[in-house]
Amino acid sequence: MSDAPSVPGFVAGGVATGSKKKGAKDLALIFCPAGAAAAGVLTTNKIPAPPVQIARAVFQRGSASAIVANSGCANAYTGRAGTADARVVMRRTAKLLGLHEREVIPASTGVIGQRLPVTAINRALPQLATGLSPRGWLAAADAIRTTDTRPKVSWQQCPAGGGRVQLVGIAKGAGMIEPHMATLLVFLATNARIRAPLLRRLLKNACDQSFNRLTIDGCMSTNDMATVLASGEGCPRALLPGERDTQRFAKLLIEVCRDLANQLAADGEGATKRVRIRVEGASSDRQAGTAAYALGNSLLVKTALHGEDPNWGRIVQALGASGVRLNAAKLGITIGKSPILSRGVYGGAAVEARARRTMQGASYEICVKLGVGRGRDEILTCDLSAEYVRINASYRS
Amino acid sequence: MSDAPSVPGFVAGGVATGSKKKGAKDLALIFCPAGAAAAGVLTTNKIPAPPVQIARAVFQRGSASAIVANSGCANAYTGRAGTADARVVMRRTAKLLGLHEREVIPASTGVIGQRLPVTAINRALPQLATGLSPRGWLAAADAIRTTDTRPKVSWQQCPAGGGRVQLVGIAKGAGMIEPHMATLLVFLATNARIRAPLLRRLLKNACDQSFNRLTIDGCMSTNDMATVLASGEGCPRALLPGERDTQRFAKLLIEVCRDLANQLAADGEGATKRVRIRVEGASSDRQAGTAAYALGNSLLVKTALHGEDPNWGRIVQALGASGVRLNAAKLGITIGKSPILSRGVYGGAAVEARARRTMQGASYEICVKLGVGRGRDEILTCDLSAEYVRINASYRS
Repeated sequence: MSDAPSVPGFVAGGVATGSKKKGAKDLALIFCPAGAAAAGVLTTNKIPAPPVQIARAVFQRGSASAIVANSGCANAYTGRAGTADARVVMRRTAKLLGLHEREVIPASTGVIGQRLPVTAINRALPQLATGLSPRGWLAAADAIRTTDTRPKVSWQQCPAGGGRVQLVGIAKGAGMIEPHMATLLVFLATNARIRAPLLRRLLKNACDQSFNRLTIDGCMSTNDMATVLASGEGCPRALLPGERDTQRFAKLLIEVCRDLANQLAADGEGATKRVRIRVEGASSDRQAGTAAYALGNSLLVKTALHGEDPNWGRIVQALGASGVRLNAAKLGITIGKSPILSRGVYGGAAVEARARRTMQGASYEICVKLGVGRGRDEILTCDLSAEYVRINASYRS
Repeated sequence: MSDAPSVPGFVAGGVATGSKKKGAKDLALIFCPAGAAAAGVLTTNKIPAPPVQIARAVFQRGSASAIVANSGCANAYTGRAGTADARVVMRRTAKLLGLHEREVIPASTGVIGQRLPVTAINRALPQLATGLSPRGWLAAADAIRTTDTRPKVSWQQCPAGGGRVQLVGIAKGAGMIEPHMATLLVFLATNARIRAPLLRRLLKNACDQSFNRLTIDGCMSTNDMATVLASGEGCPRALLPGERDTQRFAKLLIEVCRDLANQLAADGEGATKRVRIRVEGASSDRQAGTAAYALGNSLLVKTALHGEDPNWGRIVQALGASGVRLNAAKLGITIGKSPILSRGVYGGAAVEARARRTMQGASYEICVKLGVGRGRDEILTCDLSAEYVRINASYRS
């Protein structure tokens, strides 16, 4: 769709506070002047950052009018000072927009353990607030990047609720990504009219089918959140549980989240490949998920993906080590369309050569059959490159 | 100790079968002509290689006279053909040494899913059998290497059982290492007089305190085994459970295994740092172990170790993600002697600078305090380098 999406009821934008090198944007603001239903899914990391703890309270109330997010400093493990810092930014934002502090959702991403650059942020906020625009989503997406090489925006619409429901999403990812909301910031905005509890249920479901099926490096961040605000503007009829329109909206939400998850996987730190790992024939869906993550997180599998090497022995090794139930004599491994292992039998050099050609592409699928049941699951992962090591060995310097 | 250890009752050696590039040694043989008590600890990978399955039966009988081990081909996931291949090599070895096939323990390490080069191995066996020597341990250690950059040998002795108990161990590691016997081959030989069940208990305990506390890349191999053979030669009195001499021998076993584990960590694939991670103040020893492995396997922590960056935020993130009980306000992180975090408070730039200097060394310790109990554990890990990716992206080519 168009490069400059918009959603009735929302304005957005992003600016540079001057804290980042080369004047890169690092402060984003999303604003719904009339107020919105709000729902969020937060990291399960046991040491959540102050902004995550504050956001939790906002989501419990179920309404908000603005999101203020900075990148570069995670404001994580900063204790009471970090909470105070976040509140200073929330208050300043609220004042500029004519809101109460509790209507502002704070979010941060970047280095853990450093104090928030409150002065620089507060200095940049007025200009940011003045420059907000209905088409400011790309600027906002740009401003929440850390090691992401490009901004992630997705936009979809469908008829529902007596109007046209629009949904825009922006996200940042790159590293420290594992299931359960890990180093993701995802901000979604829609003009659907919907109450917070239902919105939360649909968001949770969409996350489970997108971001929670993604692993870049098996690391779960202190700061992850996925948020959706719903303005209701231009949609006279509220979406209610079980309605066909609600199902349509739920599907829209999943589509946008999956599109963003795809963009995140393709832009994993140092990643050159986006690989979907599908596991079938497990004794349960949960076992299939365990096997899929065992593959997606295995360093030996990820380096083989990087080397474009159909080294199925490493897949076998990782499956065996994962502890899931499997029938070694029935094991199947298909790379792209090449069955390199079928019912435990190696497909031969020609099949392996075809698999290698598949692996030279930027995006493909590996399907594994465990041969013990009907459980299935799939995840997205990427390769592990020397570039990942370079990025993360020098991230703070 | 000396470069050329020996143990009464044993001869060993290693040769090149010609299957490896540059004529590198790839076939090792250890022989105890008078027969030995035998014990082993094997991989828990659910798809164990044929040699592991065969060895299991040998260890159940509790006696053996020889170990034949090749490197380069793991003979893993090779099915019935793989079992037959291993048996051919065992038979040939047995015939050359005047043994029964069941007295021979087979072991393999290398690429998974390829057939054993039986012809090349059988062609090389006579020369290997003829050249066995009491001082052949280094040659044997050399022959079991895959990506190990150097052979690992350790040798200790103590008075026990009415004589001088000697213990020599050789090992290979490098990659695919996680607890529970993962891509390790460890062969130990002693002249202690001891029965197999006790020997097995002592070996299991020594492994738990050494190899099972080591993580290079979180991958568990299909082929791991630690084996000990005991000849009894020159030790007139048998070691019995609970005796002081037995405790001495148990300690010897732990020392040699720890020394080998240290050598393995220092030679992890592409590793430039060997780091001991100690966790204290956990709610249980098991929780401490979970936390220690969460740190030792975290890509973000391992790349920070590589970058010599005291990025304690990543340690906090990994601890939080591990799910272990902790008190964020009491968290402590000490790198070397620098308390970069004490009871939740950052130690400041000077302490961080000192920590950075510690991290520039090749070997140091990180101590983490969780602040909730008295549980403790420690493991060995290494950094993750671009070299690891290079090695493993191109391992088969």
